[in-house]
Amino acid sequence: MAYIAIEDGIPGILGLMMFRPETTKPLRELAEVLLRDNNTLTRGDRETIAAFVSSRNDCKFCQLTHTAAAAEHMGGTEADYALINAVKADFQSSHISPKLKTLLNIAGKVQMGGKHVREDDVAAARSEGASDQEIHDTVLIAAVFCMFNRYVDGLATWQPEDPEVYRPIGKLMAHSGYTGTN
Amino acid sequence: MAYIAIEDGIPGILGLMMFRPETTKPLRELAEVLLRDNNTLTRGDRETIAAFVSSRNDCKFCQLTHTAAAAEHMGGTEADYALINAVKADFQSSHISPKLKTLLNIAGKVQMGGKHVREDDVAAARSEGASDQEIHDTVLIAAVFCMFNRYVDGLATWQPEDPEVYRPIGKLMAHSGYTGTN
Repeated sequence: MAYIAIEDGIPGILGLMMFRPETTKPLRELAEVLLRDNNTLTRGDRETIAAFVSSRNDCKFCQLTHTAAAAEHMGGTEADYALINAVKADFQSSHISPKLKTLLNIAGKVQMGGKHVREDDVAAARSEGASDQEIHDTVLIAAVFCMFNRYVDGLATWQPEDPEVYRPIGKLMAHSGYTGTN
Repeated sequence: MAYIAIEDGIPGILGLMMFRPETTKPLRELAEVLLRDNNTLTRGDRETIAAFVSSRNDCKFCQLTHTAAAAEHMGGTEADYALINAVKADFQSSHISPKLKTLLNIAGKVQMGGKHVREDDVAAARSEGASDQEIHDTVLIAAVFCMFNRYVDGLATWQPEDPEVYRPIGKLMAHSGYTGTN
């Protein structure tokens, strides 16, 4: 049971979002802008960064829903899901672009703390063609999921064991977005 | 120098906010709702939580500006500044209410990671009279500053050594708010 009185049977952040609509509005807008708005990073890449950071923070709800969102943006096949799982397990050996590997390296440093990101981490991303905005958005996505993960776990929200629970939620996030207006 | 090309001579998050107005809008709104909107927690208490978490994350810009904002909400005397500094150094021995101590204890756990918050941390806050929304907002403020701190430090923004630089910024935050519209 969650630490505060939120509606029963609603997993992860969803119950918290109903509890406090005033904070939910900017949180939803932030996710929409970062993960879905026009960007030179694909939606699949951005959701992969979100799933990866959530995995490092061991937040089941965020990790599994954003894994599903990432896989759905890539086509939604079992191979897509397997690719995101491989990234979370060991991104350096996974079949993703060298550029995305350098961005995940930065995201992993941000997960540990902002000061862990070093000049050579950024130089490596730049040498694979990452732009200033792509580096900015990678850092901010990683930072934002360090927030979401703490919010979801810090209030002990309900997160069922069955991984199948999370797939439809991630599909909805991928296809309908975060603000409920598109 | 910051890792990306933001305007020179603008400290901390302020340069980042000019760089990417699309993400700045929801970030500003989130700070405004959490730290300044009507709440049974005073603005001073909420800014104290923000300063405390930023201190634990060793983010100079956020720590010193929110220290100033907290002190300004309490009256802005040197004694108010000294109180917030004492909270950051050792909140358990500082001259704040027992209830705020229990909330800072929760915020400190969130800083380490969401799963560090235990049922007895929450029970202690409740026994000092904390409501569900106050517990919720404490967790979310702490989580949000784990984001802001990572954003500001992860991109290596300019953060001058002189602590006097931060006081006028914090005063402005306290008195004019975060959205620039009030």
